[in-house]
Amino acid sequence: MSAPATDDQADTGRLEAFSDGVFAIAITLLVLELRVPGGDGSLWHKLIHEWPQFAAYLSSFAVIGIMWVNHHSMFRAIVRTDRPLLFLNLLLLLWMSLLPFPTSLVSRYLGGGGPDASVAEAVYSANLALAAIAFSLIWVRAVRGGRLIAAPLGAAAERSSLLRFSVGTFIYAATIGLAFLSAPLALGVQAALALYYGFEQVSA
Amino acid sequence: MSAPATDDQADTGRLEAFSDGVFAIAITLLVLELRVPGGDGSLWHKLIHEWPQFAAYLSSFAVIGIMWVNHHSMFRAIVRTDRPLLFLNLLLLLWMSLLPFPTSLVSRYLGGGGPDASVAEAVYSANLALAAIAFSLIWVRAVRGGRLIAAPLGAAAERSSLLRFSVGTFIYAATIGLAFLSAPLALGVQAALALYYGFEQVSA
Amino acid sequence: MSAPATDDQADTGRLEAFSDGVFAIAITLLVLELRVPGGDGSLWHKLIHEWPQFAAYLSSFAVIGIMWVNHHSMFRAIVRTDRPLLFLNLLLLLWMSLLPFPTSLVSRYLGGGGPDASVAEAVYSANLALAAIAFSLIWVRAVRGGRLIAAPLGAAAERSSLLRFSVGTFIYAATIGLAFLSAPLALGVQAALALYYGFEQVSA
Amino acid sequence: MSAPATDDQADTGRLEAFSDGVFAIAITLLVLELRVPGGDGSLWHKLIHEWPQFAAYLSSFAVIGIMWVNHHSMFRAIVRTDRPLLFLNLLLLLWMSLLPFPTSLVSRYLGGGGPDASVAEAVYSANLALAAIAFSLIWVRAVRGGRLIAAPLGAAAERSSLLRFSVGTFIYAATIGLAFLSAPLALGVQAALALYYGFEQVSA
Repeated sequence: MSAPATDDQADTGRLEAFSDGVFAIAITLLVLELRVPGGDGSLWHKLIHEWPQFAAYLSSFAVIGIMWVNHHSMFRAIVRTDRPLLFLNLLLLLWMSLLPFPTSLVSRYLGGGGPDASVAEAVYSANLALAAIAFSLIWVRAVRGGRLIAAPLGAAAERSSLLRFSVGTFIYAATIGLAFLSAPLALGVQAALALYYGFEQVSA
Repeated sequence: MSAPATDDQADTGRLEAFSDGVFAIAITLLVLELRVPGGDGSLWHKLIHEWPQFAAYLSSFAVIGIMWVNHHSMFRAIVRTDRPLLFLNLLLLLWMSLLPFPTSLVSRYLGGGGPDASVAEAVYSANLALAAIAFSLIWVRAVRGGRLIAAPLGAAAERSSLLRFSVGTFIYAATIGLAFLSAPLALGVQAALALYYGFEQVSA
Repeated sequence: MSAPATDDQADTGRLEAFSDGVFAIAITLLVLELRVPGGDGSLWHKLIHEWPQFAAYLSSFAVIGIMWVNHHSMFRAIVRTDRPLLFLNLLLLLWMSLLPFPTSLVSRYLGGGGPDASVAEAVYSANLALAAIAFSLIWVRAVRGGRLIAAPLGAAAERSSLLRFSVGTFIYAATIGLAFLSAPLALGVQAALALYYGFEQVSA
Repeated sequence: MSAPATDDQADTGRLEAFSDGVFAIAITLLVLELRVPGGDGSLWHKLIHEWPQFAAYLSSFAVIGIMWVNHHSMFRAIVRTDRPLLFLNLLLLLWMSLLPFPTSLVSRYLGGGGPDASVAEAVYSANLALAAIAFSLIWVRAVRGGRLIAAPLGAAAERSSLLRFSVGTFIYAATIGLAFLSAPLALGVQAALALYYGFEQVSA
């Protein structure tokens, strides 16, 4: 049985509308980081030379898009909000709307290799890990004791959904270190994890 | 008879809200590609000299606007979503939100002519063709077997609506090649096709 | 008696959502045209020296804000859409989302005076006049024969509401010419007209 | 007893949608002010050297996010709009969407210290104070005589809620002066106040 709504609780309509707005804007602003290449040579060669900015664009588009899909799934289960949930959701939106910045770091520094490529990719990884943590915190806040969901999950389902979040968070955190071994490999692991999240999800 | 909704299916409200957001932002961000002309000479002459950026702006505004109108029509027929539809819709949104980038390539290179104008226009054409393909995939996913629509179309109507999509996709794909014969002509064909889509549409 | 809804007609929900998005983005993107002043001297003096960009920002914010308020009022009366209305609304959104461009022309050229200030202000005026025309066309499409409104206005109310639109359009058009006599005066007339529209409106 | 709705009054749906849009865009545009550092040295050192832009980003994200949360709370109590409320809300949105500009002033000038750091921080403080004033005006308009709320607050609750707004406005106004004593201290006070508003709010 779910906990009864209190005065402090509200339905999730405006939270979802605001979140949809931030996700939609962050995913669309990524295009502003794509620069029309300058310099000499044919346009075709310059575009090919700029492959890291397109790889970073696609990766971030996939991450934000899939996080939106999962936010959508999660808020089919979450039926009420309270003030802590609003702030945890803001924390998630902070990392989502910050993502274009490390994306542009990766765009600019990945192609050059060396320590700067690793730092850029590590900052990008840290941003993803922080987003995954915020996602977990939202879920914990909502499901504990069936506080903000329509029907409590049961102890086993709760543990298994939290475990799945923890694994994702751990992998993103591990790519921070991996970036110093191989920045392109770390980006590849993140792309693979995005695809995994695309096919697996919180059951709602 | 339409297929019954499964656990994995949801209504289309948040998909439409998120898509409206991305369409609205992509169409409005186009203005950021318009540069205030620098250099010598009167402002009036500099603005006229910059005609390619205004032509590209209008063309992309028309394309995104009309795709929004048709998305709107299509989702009057589509009444449920499932996970594959969410991802196919994300694919469409990817091409919509990327469009400001090839638009700025066309703005900068069309006026100069030569191979760079053709490459810029071909990249722009490829973006449009990929968007048309994503549109078709959404429609196929939704109508096959009446999976996600209120009332199945019937075999004849299904074939005719898919044919219309295929023609559009084929023409956009053909403008990729046409761009190497004449970049301005390819842009003109795309503008004409946008107008055609403005008057003809998925019957919903 | 209003005309019965046809197959081609739909409710106004998504049109309003998409329009709200474009208005909200256009009004917020204006801030990106504000440049942090470079060069020598104290920050305070540089900010004061940049007054034209703040005047243009405030003017465009007021225009878009008030047009949103009136769009809101208008769509309390309009209860159905059809395909022509969707396109006329897109036309209005075109001029709304283009506005940051002439705003930045005014920001950059008004302070310098001379013919370039007049051209910048005339382009700005033309944008406003075209938006006012699009607004009138939406209203004509909706009210003629009570086509898309809940209750027809009656011939007298219809004429008087159209007259009010025509006056606004005429004044904006007149500021195109006025810009060549005095660009700051034309901007002042537009600010005054925005205030007038703020207090007077379509009765709904 | 609340006042009966008049013809001029409407429900708050589109006001909330438009406001959500502007809040969401303003909070997400902040990222565009973050510049990838140029110049020599390792990327890591350059990022650390750029701490003022990250402090300003976080501060503005917190301010806009918390103002959105409180707008959300406030419009759970406010159930009707009228034309003055629409304009007071536009005034609030003006200050919200302007905030990225003083944020970029602080980003650029806070690190250098001296009078320019104080001017940048004072402009930022003035923007926050003006937003707080607009917030109070919305609240006054809505609660006086129970005009636009579901159930009047009672004289005591009305006074106490207004007092809380006044205190916030006064503190923001005081940081304008404080900026000339110590710009970083003023920024710290604003961050503390944002946290306070995060935990305390209009009871709705």
